[in-house]
Amino acid sequence: MDFTVNQLAAMLQGKVEGNGSDRVKAIGKIQEAEKGAITFLANPKYEHFIYATRATAVIVKKDFTPEKPLGVSLIKVDDPYSSFTKLLEEYDKIASFDKTGVEEPSFISENVTFGEKLYRGAFSYIGSNVKIGDNVKIYPHTYIGDNVIIGDNCIFYPGTKIYADTEIGNNCIFHSGVVVGSDGFGFAPQEGGTYKKIPQLGNVIIHDNVEIGANTVIDCATLGSTLIERGVKLDNLVQVAHNVEIGSNTVIASQTGISGSTKLGKNCVVAGQVGLVGHIEVADQVTLAAKTGLSKSVKQEGAVIFGYPAMDHKAYLKCHAVFRNLPELRERVNELEKKVLNLPAN
Amino acid sequence: MDFTVNQLAAMLQGKVEGNGSDRVKAIGKIQEAEKGAITFLANPKYEHFIYATRATAVIVKKDFTPEKPLGVSLIKVDDPYSSFTKLLEEYDKIASFDKTGVEEPSFISENVTFGEKLYRGAFSYIGSNVKIGDNVKIYPHTYIGDNVIIGDNCIFYPGTKIYADTEIGNNCIFHSGVVVGSDGFGFAPQEGGTYKKIPQLGNVIIHDNVEIGANTVIDCATLGSTLIERGVKLDNLVQVAHNVEIGSNTVIASQTGISGSTKLGKNCVVAGQVGLVGHIEVADQVTLAAKTGLSKSVKQEGAVIFGYPAMDHKAYLKCHAVFRNLPELRERVNELEKKVLNLPAN
Amino acid sequence: MDFTVNQLAAMLQGKVEGNGSDRVKAIGKIQEAEKGAITFLANPKYEHFIYATRATAVIVKKDFTPEKPLGVSLIKVDDPYSSFTKLLEEYDKIASFDKTGVEEPSFISENVTFGEKLYRGAFSYIGSNVKIGDNVKIYPHTYIGDNVIIGDNCIFYPGTKIYADTEIGNNCIFHSGVVVGSDGFGFAPQEGGTYKKIPQLGNVIIHDNVEIGANTVIDCATLGSTLIERGVKLDNLVQVAHNVEIGSNTVIASQTGISGSTKLGKNCVVAGQVGLVGHIEVADQVTLAAKTGLSKSVKQEGAVIFGYPAMDHKAYLKCHAVFRNLPELRERVNELEKKVLNLPAN
Repeated sequence: MDFTVNQLAAMLQGKVEGNGSDRVKAIGKIQEAEKGAITFLANPKYEHFIYATRATAVIVKKDFTPEKPLGVSLIKVDDPYSSFTKLLEEYDKIASFDKTGVEEPSFISENVTFGEKLYRGAFSYIGSNVKIGDNVKIYPHTYIGDNVIIGDNCIFYPGTKIYADTEIGNNCIFHSGVVVGSDGFGFAPQEGGTYKKIPQLGNVIIHDNVEIGANTVIDCATLGSTLIERGVKLDNLVQVAHNVEIGSNTVIASQTGISGSTKLGKNCVVAGQVGLVGHIEVADQVTLAAKTGLSKSVKQEGAVIFGYPAMDHKAYLKCHAVFRNLPELRERVNELEKKVLNLPAN
Repeated sequence: MDFTVNQLAAMLQGKVEGNGSDRVKAIGKIQEAEKGAITFLANPKYEHFIYATRATAVIVKKDFTPEKPLGVSLIKVDDPYSSFTKLLEEYDKIASFDKTGVEEPSFISENVTFGEKLYRGAFSYIGSNVKIGDNVKIYPHTYIGDNVIIGDNCIFYPGTKIYADTEIGNNCIFHSGVVVGSDGFGFAPQEGGTYKKIPQLGNVIIHDNVEIGANTVIDCATLGSTLIERGVKLDNLVQVAHNVEIGSNTVIASQTGISGSTKLGKNCVVAGQVGLVGHIEVADQVTLAAKTGLSKSVKQEGAVIFGYPAMDHKAYLKCHAVFRNLPELRERVNELEKKVLNLPAN
Repeated sequence: MDFTVNQLAAMLQGKVEGNGSDRVKAIGKIQEAEKGAITFLANPKYEHFIYATRATAVIVKKDFTPEKPLGVSLIKVDDPYSSFTKLLEEYDKIASFDKTGVEEPSFISENVTFGEKLYRGAFSYIGSNVKIGDNVKIYPHTYIGDNVIIGDNCIFYPGTKIYADTEIGNNCIFHSGVVVGSDGFGFAPQEGGTYKKIPQLGNVIIHDNVEIGANTVIDCATLGSTLIERGVKLDNLVQVAHNVEIGSNTVIASQTGISGSTKLGKNCVVAGQVGLVGHIEVADQVTLAAKTGLSKSVKQEGAVIFGYPAMDHKAYLKCHAVFRNLPELRERVNELEKKVLNLPAN
């Protein structure tokens, strides 16, 4: 990366204040950036850093007015954060790994088709009858089972495991250790207390633009499909059980678990360490706060839920406010009992 | 799969109502099955689907009497769900992966013995002095450390990691990303606040008929053995610490963690996201509800436990019923205080 | 291992009572040890075992006086537990895996440097420009991305995945399935409810003497570095999000999750299944009890925190003591209301 401040401002449709011919060669945080770097100021809490930063240029909001003299050039934009993100993306494209071709040894079975610009890393394994689109990156130690279908522009980071029969759309990203299509947890109790495995014959279908975090697991359906709709984002170490369906653009933070056959709506936000029981439905745009345990369906769109057993978020906080003072409340009841006892008899 | 309805009914010891000569070529859910498929009806909630299904045959309970005309053939059995499961198993046997032989490149050390019908996938690694029984499937990217002993009919899905000295019985299944035998979390505090690793010299012993879900971890013992008894089923992302013992036929759902040296009884049911402190014992047939935090031993067989700190399940729910109305209870105490204050002095 | 009791006593600076010429060939637990084994007695609860043990020698506290006749030799020391640990370490050194050299096939890119006594297992993958110190063990199926720097005496167990640009100090241990450097969970909401990935350009820096448990995930920073300081110990299945910083000698138990940009102090103890929200700070020597949910910074050094929403540990237990009797408290309020209603009017 090597641009003038003026070039970057043009790229970001911003306006320069300061020396537009300074050269920028790196990207950094405002408190750490060195000479030659560009950074941004979005949060007013960080404003004091702009007077001390060693950066060469700072992206700021267009109405930013410095309270003291500045040693940096400014690029004024509508939304500094998204401008900076845009810049990062450009930088990422340049810096990003763009390997293609095949590293050996790797393993590929019969009847596999693939598009242009494939990267197939060493020790990757591709089963029979697999179909792979254009511009797919399969890092080392990835396993792709038989009959898997993969769209364009997907990335499988090292050690991803995709069981047979999985279907994956375009632009999906799988981080290391992700497992897709493992058997659902289904066992029929037998006389004598033992369990018999219920065969898990279904698969997993993942639509476009899905990203799945490291060591997350998505089980296949018993019958039919476990379904991850378009634009879903799953963080690390998430559990998605058999026959679950997750609606489009729903995001789920780390260590959350969704039990079998539960259906989440679209555009939901599920925080970390949440648990959902099986066979329930959650409406669209519902928020589940961290560590919530949800054992009933949520029918109201946009509801915000908290606690375990789960309640309305605000109601829960009100209850908890009393909980925090329960010893005092009990003492007041003690006092009342004493007083009432001492009152004159009727 | 291509059978007549009569053939399937004979297989399931059921009685046909409708056209026994119709052909069945697939298996499906009642609401999704197409012509040529067989499905089942077990839950009365789903009865309305039977009048609309496009399936060719439906397995139903022997006393099922339709309320409207039907377009499908029926196979009447004692228990539709287990009949259907039986059918799935048969189907699974036909459809299932039955590879044997060795894919190259793979790695095998000296002094390894194995039985008949071994599948050893590409990029699998087998250490020294390993003993492997008959009909074992070792998928790609599996690691089997030195001195491991494996019984008959075991399956290691892609990327399973078995540390040295582990002992595994017959009919065990390990899903992708499972780690067995990693070091227990044992550190001795030193002066100055640092920690010194306590060597973890024990191993893991797994008895027959155990299934372990994707990305679950079982640590080796400090000394002696971490023990998973016959018929135990562990879901995905479960943590089993060093020196834990899990009794036969106990099932544990996803994301539960069991701390060091804790012993679970037989035929227990542990739901998801439960945590058990170390060095406690849980009696046989105990149920731990989801998200329970257990910090004391449970001595009563068959107890049902909930909450954190854990309580009897029903007692917890009664407390929580009051918790949900704590603001109102506080208001009632406020009112009482006002009234008592306004009472005539004694 | 084959020593006399006298030799072992000398090694441990202990005093023998019994037959110092007996031979010891194994190590075991007091309740399980066989003839020829040495064991220890530290916890008085286990004292009854010493009268029944089949072991040849027992390490005991120097003031231990048997209440009954003993069939074993004693080695009396100041601290039996740490003496036994010392013995284990010696044993471990002898017994431990000490492979060096390269197993094939393995993959190594251009411009990799490494020190003495490297072990590089079959199917391991090393990217470009990687620097590796002395005495490093890279087990099979390990992935080391481009530009990674690794100090001396590190161990990467099978299937560890280290993304590009990670920096690792000396004496670090990574268990199977660990992922270091995966993308942080950062997405910018777009109009229409979709999300756009925020490029994650930073890395992970891990200082000396860090041990990381199986299937734990540490995400890279958005910008800058996710930082794991000297002597940190992470258990299995822990989640460390982007830009988190963990201070030296902090230990974190299994299934805990730390959200983005949160900073933990030094010498903290975090129990299992704890969750920390993002962008908070925790002072040094803080203890977070199991399953705590922390949503605010903890400024007080040495604080002990519990519950969710989190409180002071003792205060929480007092509140919970009332919670356990809430139905009774409500009943008392009911009674009070009846009595007050029946009082003579003013």
